[in-house]
Amino acid sequence: MAQGITKREEDYSKWYNDIVVQADLADHSSVRGCMVIKPHGYAIWENMQHVLDKMFKDTGHVNAYFPLFIPKSLFEAEEKNAEGFAKECAVVTHYRLKTDPKNAGKLIVDPEAKLEEELIVRPTSEAIIWNTYKGWIESYRDLPILVNQWANVVRWEMRTRLFLRTSEFLWQEGHTAHATKEEAIEETEKMLEVYADFVENWMAVPVVKGKKTANERFAGADETYCIEALMQDGKALQAGTSHFLGQNFAKAFDVKYVTKENKQEYVWATSWGVSTRLMGALIMSHSDDNGLIIPPKLAPTHVVIVPIHKTEEGLAKITDLANTIKNNLKQKNISVKYDNRDSYRPGFKFAEHELKGVPVRVAIGERDLANGTVEVARRDNLTKEVISISEIETYIEKLLVDIQSNLFERAKARQANLTTHVNTFEEFKKTLDEKTGFVYAHWDGTPETEEKIKEETKATIRCIPLNNLQEAGVCIYSGKPSTQKVLFARAY
Amino acid sequence: MAQGITKREEDYSKWYNDIVVQADLADHSSVRGCMVIKPHGYAIWENMQHVLDKMFKDTGHVNAYFPLFIPKSLFEAEEKNAEGFAKECAVVTHYRLKTDPKNAGKLIVDPEAKLEEELIVRPTSEAIIWNTYKGWIESYRDLPILVNQWANVVRWEMRTRLFLRTSEFLWQEGHTAHATKEEAIEETEKMLEVYADFVENWMAVPVVKGKKTANERFAGADETYCIEALMQDGKALQAGTSHFLGQNFAKAFDVKYVTKENKQEYVWATSWGVSTRLMGALIMSHSDDNGLIIPPKLAPTHVVIVPIHKTEEGLAKITDLANTIKNNLKQKNISVKYDNRDSYRPGFKFAEHELKGVPVRVAIGERDLANGTVEVARRDNLTKEVISISEIETYIEKLLVDIQSNLFERAKARQANLTTHVNTFEEFKKTLDEKTGFVYAHWDGTPETEEKIKEETKATIRCIPLNNLQEAGVCIYSGKPSTQKVLFARAY
Repeated sequence: MAQGITKREEDYSKWYNDIVVQADLADHSSVRGCMVIKPHGYAIWENMQHVLDKMFKDTGHVNAYFPLFIPKSLFEAEEKNAEGFAKECAVVTHYRLKTDPKNAGKLIVDPEAKLEEELIVRPTSEAIIWNTYKGWIESYRDLPILVNQWANVVRWEMRTRLFLRTSEFLWQEGHTAHATKEEAIEETEKMLEVYADFVENWMAVPVVKGKKTANERFAGADETYCIEALMQDGKALQAGTSHFLGQNFAKAFDVKYVTKENKQEYVWATSWGVSTRLMGALIMSHSDDNGLIIPPKLAPTHVVIVPIHKTEEGLAKITDLANTIKNNLKQKNISVKYDNRDSYRPGFKFAEHELKGVPVRVAIGERDLANGTVEVARRDNLTKEVISISEIETYIEKLLVDIQSNLFERAKARQANLTTHVNTFEEFKKTLDEKTGFVYAHWDGTPETEEKIKEETKATIRCIPLNNLQEAGVCIYSGKPSTQKVLFARAY
Repeated sequence: MAQGITKREEDYSKWYNDIVVQADLADHSSVRGCMVIKPHGYAIWENMQHVLDKMFKDTGHVNAYFPLFIPKSLFEAEEKNAEGFAKECAVVTHYRLKTDPKNAGKLIVDPEAKLEEELIVRPTSEAIIWNTYKGWIESYRDLPILVNQWANVVRWEMRTRLFLRTSEFLWQEGHTAHATKEEAIEETEKMLEVYADFVENWMAVPVVKGKKTANERFAGADETYCIEALMQDGKALQAGTSHFLGQNFAKAFDVKYVTKENKQEYVWATSWGVSTRLMGALIMSHSDDNGLIIPPKLAPTHVVIVPIHKTEEGLAKITDLANTIKNNLKQKNISVKYDNRDSYRPGFKFAEHELKGVPVRVAIGERDLANGTVEVARRDNLTKEVISISEIETYIEKLLVDIQSNLFERAKARQANLTTHVNTFEEFKKTLDEKTGFVYAHWDGTPETEEKIKEETKATIRCIPLNNLQEAGVCIYSGKPSTQKVLFARAY
């Protein structure tokens, strides 16, 4: 199994791709830039969806669904947004195929079925949604609107990587409408907290919360909040964004409401999203050279039980015990798979479940039965222990909590080790090249300096952390005065 | 509220549209043929999804996700399937927009970003999935593959109706691969049973299970099974289909497996789907001139409590009681909304919740409190009863079961009343015109006769019911011998 996985040290990028493909998470498709999400990968994504969906509903949001297509005239209405996405838009121009008159078995696009107006496959849905909200909002009584959509979106990519950057991806996009600026900003910040909570406490990935610089803002936003995570190779990954859109879309689509005082005001907006990109963050944060590691809280299967038997009689006894354990754990909402396939040997099964990231493996041999014990192996640190059958369920219940917290602590320690404060541009470049990771440095606050640092080092400002320490200093690049260090990194 | 709803007798089709729009289920969008599914409608669809998803998983299926786009060369590989869908395909031809050189604020399709090969927006996913399965299947050990996908699909429509016929719709499509013909047919039939179970026991809509004639089969299938429901206006609605695809897609995409005996064989396939069209069936089966009626098992909110108070002190007492009832019902998994909005009067709220289809309404007045009673109104038959507060929770729990079963029995009785057996073409036409509904009649089994009957009467053969009575007779149209009556109707 794991023989096929490239070691991280050898080629981190190939290691990542090997895990995605060999752990059956996803694969490239015959459609340029689009992936197939395989059942094992989709099961993890479904778990993420369930948790997030509940979090959204607990914070007052409801789901809805808006069209896949956006007429070009609507798409271009909010100019900055349109400009930001124009270069990566898939465009539908025709609505019919016909038989090729020159080649009976083939189809061609019917030139007579050309659309009067081209349709953009949504790269994000602000335009179509704000055009819809116009019909939903008349007075302050209709606000706030707190809507989320689970959907596929398309942003044409030339260089793609499974989960991290694909032309089509799955995501959720929240789109809310508010009567006041304060309420919209509060919503933007609230959803950032929801994302941080999810990524840290479910995915076990620590994040830095912050605001993007103007350069890195979402096209059409007044402010973009983000959570930034750090991968094992020291590169940053933006894990989620929450945008305060001001009145930009309300103005572009003329969405006003009547206040209690009977005045007409433009509506305030937010949007926020996370995508299947989170799968990439999950994989790259925890996995090792043996394969995938899934945090227990998101694992489709928590425990796999593998029988090791010499006789049919022995197998029957093991099966009885396995079923008892399985049923007892089910009561605790722990999902167990009993892998009694007779076409594979135990060693093969061990490697396979390790590759696929099942948090806990229980092996039951005939001798174990006699001793009243089983062997329990944990995926996160690959250690094994012999546990008495009488206490197996409570042991596993506690073990899953331990693994979840160990993964988070491990990732936190790594992030701390890979976070450096620098004072000069030399130090900055050296840190990026030799140590990698998050680098805090003073910046003069101008887009020009930011751009030049990016050109020279490929590092970008990941964010200006929330509650950032205010301290006088000088910009590492321009030498101009600065009021705070910001967070730089090379990023995915 | 309900003043805006056209009466069924006046204009059934307008009644349907009024309910969809005014009960906040869905609305037309600015994109031709595409709808917006509003939060109330989406909440019902989500409930349907949850139930169906669990049924699929309980029968051994897993979810996955395949690309939205299908390259034209793959799309045309299975010729009958391609031919069947060619006329309704949205086609992506370009992947970039650019600023209009003649008009700075506008965007045009960049002619230099033309795709080498056009991409079809999936109208159904057999082609892309079987092209993928080719890489997943080598030997009998890899079979069966039991995969389902929740997705959006696009079939270009010129005349659209909310939920019933839209260019983009949401659905699930199961795609399974099997070693033998028998196993694939068994799967096809099993999923038809799952659909029938769902539609009858959750949606409370009775169905007839059967097979389609060759004319009405899914393009690319060897056999199409279906469930047919009857709407209040006597028109049939196909509620779900399950296809035995034979080896057609395996041959088109060259998907073979090595048998236990080390032979190469083509793989056998099925596909099956239900869509947001079910929302149309739900709405049209149960609703009345006051608005939507939702079967309790799929209702997002089961009970609404409306306070009727004269004093603030009275309201406080009512609120206490409402919260107690709400909490007690929550323990029984009954979802309750306490509608204490102060901006609307009770009568307005009654009408609104009636329009939106909440199964049970509880009104609590100050006098009720004194009497230890509340007023309970059921949405299905609009009757009211005064119930002692001490037994309200058990009463409501039972009432929801009663409403669910009453809706089903009512629909069953209607279907029975609207089912007619005829022996002559005169009777057939008269029944269709004057009585409408399901009509059983002898048919000679030829596509030509089927086609002529359709031309002359607009009635189609909905299905050849499973376990149909075999009886000698003569075709109502051609007078030729027939072995069984088949089910005709005018249909959505």
